[in-house]
Amino acid sequence: MGLEELKTSVLEANLATVRSGLVTATFGNASGIDRNSGTLAIKPSGVPYDRMTSEQIVAVSLEGAVLDNAYKPSSDLDTHLVLYRAFPDIGAVIHTHSTYATIFAQALTPIPCFGTTHADYFHGEVPVTRHLSEDEIRNRYVAATGDAIVETIGDSDPLEIPAALVASHGPFVWGRTPEEAALNALILEEVAKMAWYSMTLAPGLSPISQTLHDRHFLRKHGAQATYGQQESTP
Amino acid sequence: MGLEELKTSVLEANLATVRSGLVTATFGNASGIDRNSGTLAIKPSGVPYDRMTSEQIVAVSLEGAVLDNAYKPSSDLDTHLVLYRAFPDIGAVIHTHSTYATIFAQALTPIPCFGTTHADYFHGEVPVTRHLSEDEIRNRYVAATGDAIVETIGDSDPLEIPAALVASHGPFVWGRTPEEAALNALILEEVAKMAWYSMTLAPGLSPISQTLHDRHFLRKHGAQATYGQQESTP
Amino acid sequence: MGLEELKTSVLEANLATVRSGLVTATFGNASGIDRNSGTLAIKPSGVPYDRMTSEQIVAVSLEGAVLDNAYKPSSDLDTHLVLYRAFPDIGAVIHTHSTYATIFAQALTPIPCFGTTHADYFHGEVPVTRHLSEDEIRNRYVAATGDAIVETIGDSDPLEIPAALVASHGPFVWGRTPEEAALNALILEEVAKMAWYSMTLAPGLSPISQTLHDRHFLRKHGAQATYGQQESTP
Amino acid sequence: MGLEELKTSVLEANLATVRSGLVTATFGNASGIDRNSGTLAIKPSGVPYDRMTSEQIVAVSLEGAVLDNAYKPSSDLDTHLVLYRAFPDIGAVIHTHSTYATIFAQALTPIPCFGTTHADYFHGEVPVTRHLSEDEIRNRYVAATGDAIVETIGDSDPLEIPAALVASHGPFVWGRTPEEAALNALILEEVAKMAWYSMTLAPGLSPISQTLHDRHFLRKHGAQATYGQQESTP
Repeated sequence: MGLEELKTSVLEANLATVRSGLVTATFGNASGIDRNSGTLAIKPSGVPYDRMTSEQIVAVSLEGAVLDNAYKPSSDLDTHLVLYRAFPDIGAVIHTHSTYATIFAQALTPIPCFGTTHADYFHGEVPVTRHLSEDEIRNRYVAATGDAIVETIGDSDPLEIPAALVASHGPFVWGRTPEEAALNALILEEVAKMAWYSMTLAPGLSPISQTLHDRHFLRKHGAQATYGQQESTP
Repeated sequence: MGLEELKTSVLEANLATVRSGLVTATFGNASGIDRNSGTLAIKPSGVPYDRMTSEQIVAVSLEGAVLDNAYKPSSDLDTHLVLYRAFPDIGAVIHTHSTYATIFAQALTPIPCFGTTHADYFHGEVPVTRHLSEDEIRNRYVAATGDAIVETIGDSDPLEIPAALVASHGPFVWGRTPEEAALNALILEEVAKMAWYSMTLAPGLSPISQTLHDRHFLRKHGAQATYGQQESTP
Repeated sequence: MGLEELKTSVLEANLATVRSGLVTATFGNASGIDRNSGTLAIKPSGVPYDRMTSEQIVAVSLEGAVLDNAYKPSSDLDTHLVLYRAFPDIGAVIHTHSTYATIFAQALTPIPCFGTTHADYFHGEVPVTRHLSEDEIRNRYVAATGDAIVETIGDSDPLEIPAALVASHGPFVWGRTPEEAALNALILEEVAKMAWYSMTLAPGLSPISQTLHDRHFLRKHGAQATYGQQESTP
Repeated sequence: MGLEELKTSVLEANLATVRSGLVTATFGNASGIDRNSGTLAIKPSGVPYDRMTSEQIVAVSLEGAVLDNAYKPSSDLDTHLVLYRAFPDIGAVIHTHSTYATIFAQALTPIPCFGTTHADYFHGEVPVTRHLSEDEIRNRYVAATGDAIVETIGDSDPLEIPAALVASHGPFVWGRTPEEAALNALILEEVAKMAWYSMTLAPGLSPISQTLHDRHFLRKHGAQATYGQQESTP
């Protein structure tokens, strides 16, 4: 994949978050990476979405060096870098302040799996990160945010739990491609909304069984997936 | 009704669920049946709604054989088949993960009839299915989902209770035609939303009286219906 | 005002309820009256809003005789007639199942005045009608609905409390003109939504003071009104 | 800045509140001021937003004299005047009845800072004003509303807390420019919505730490701000 193609798909993922109603004002940012070249492309900082062009998407090395642009990269760049380094199978990262996912992040409450909508995309609850220390907030806030996400995912496969809620902040979501990460961000928001209303309607509600959870997640993911059309379908 | 006409009405019902805001991403599916030929037409699996054409709608026999298409049918086909076999008067089935109906399904809570909006379309509460067994989930999940719906409707007239909430999953809705099923799916979502807020505003709220329930349901359904224009009105 | 003009304004009020998001499917109906001729114009029953024309609006006498149309009038006609006869100063009636107003109607809970948005349009709480008797439901349901509204308004000026919530059903709203009634229906829905969330955030919340209530209501209504432009402003 | 330019930016801020969904009917008003000439420009009273032109925006002196227009200024003019006199660094004021901010105003509940969305724009909780006295309501209601806001902000920097919730009424928001005030009004509404749901999900939830609050607010505001592009970026 060439750099222009990458930038176009990153622009599209940024715009998809707006079209899906996940973004207010200029909150949020999406990036993607070409693992062959080690180059990532990320939203510029503070540019209004309705005027954003693929030329403004900033190319950055995995070490964080801006490669080609007069625009500054997103102020959350360091979080994205930490995630790309720690999770070698992911190809895109999206951060939003989407309403319901952010509500769970603010309430420091993981999103339990109450139904198959959740199970189709997340193989477990969506976790919340620990609080950052005073020192982390003051001296390396953005990278420390990434560290906390990586700690939270721990030994799980990040493609099975493709999101974490940063405490008091909002969701970071990822996937193999910008398109997949944008879909995960949209599903996360819907899952969070339904979890909020389910928990309020039925306090003490238990998560679904592991058997049902596996049945749905594995229907759409991994070697045994049966959902959707085969590649060769016209 | 010819097969092309059926496919067109099934496509339209699928798109109507999207226009009505009942669908996120590719969740959900609609089908219809021609009872004379025993052929049903159903949404293809995992095809984005905005590119769906009537040619992609898959014709299937009541025994489940794909009749005419390179596209795979919806992964929920077996649930639809069970419903068509058990409920001979229905002509269409729609499954969505619409937000509020799914919340009740996740919370394992039937939707009580708190008002005439509900009573106009559902002649009783909207029920929730039992949990499936581990064996059912592992070995015949999709068909067992249909079985659980049929058990839940029991001796009721499925055209009087044209929906059930599959536990931890979401609503299945039906009707005599794809158009009617799509309307029922839309009304169900609105009824679920209003029930959620009514129950939270007035905990312990009782359902409406059977007399009022009958008055509204029978105004729109059955031999004594008086609502709407007569067929001969221009 | 000629009959055509009346029908056009009634059509417009019906369409305004749809544009304002107060209507799902074909729920709801609006009417207006020409007090000089004693003729009212009302939505036809069960006609989809997107195909409704002013020719389909049905002219009816205050005694309920259809004057000019192949279309049947709204099935709620008798409720409108009762209101026009009891409230000689009103010129339009609108019925919707708008979500939040209907939630209060279902929960049998009057809408208290918690703020100036409410006070600007309703000079008191928005009341809920009594339940109808079994006999009323069976034998004269639609007219009895009107009777219950009239009882609920009692000695109040219906232009000061231009709405009532029919128990287990939904709101009826009125005004001097179809345009005013449509605005009142829109404001009622917003006021109901904010009341629901205010009551949940602050259980036991008291209504605003009568002084503040009067200050706002009388700013927009009656001889001392100061809001808006004078008639002569270009 | 010339008067025409000011009126255009004030018109745009008024329309932005409508586009952002902060306004129902004709509720709300925006104004801006040219500090050099001491002239402010404000929405006319009760004019529908969809027909509003920059010519209808009313120029007013800081003493409240209408300078150039057949249209009456917003009935909330005196509140705006009090704010411009008390807060010399602000250049625009916006009043809305936006749903969630108004809910907190009605519930007499300040909006705590539960996350970084809030901290990015408000350097502390969003406060609620005291109740007005009977005398204030009767005799100088609109100006007294401004006085109560000024008292509520107290010794804080109004550009660090650019909003207050008027008790039982709704939010007043400000900023250095009409564009900034419109953005603050939009963010306030989203912050209020997320606070409502966070408080309901996690009763007793504490605000975020001062360190995190400062980290976010100062990233976007003041001499050390690092967010967005530099002025010279193309």
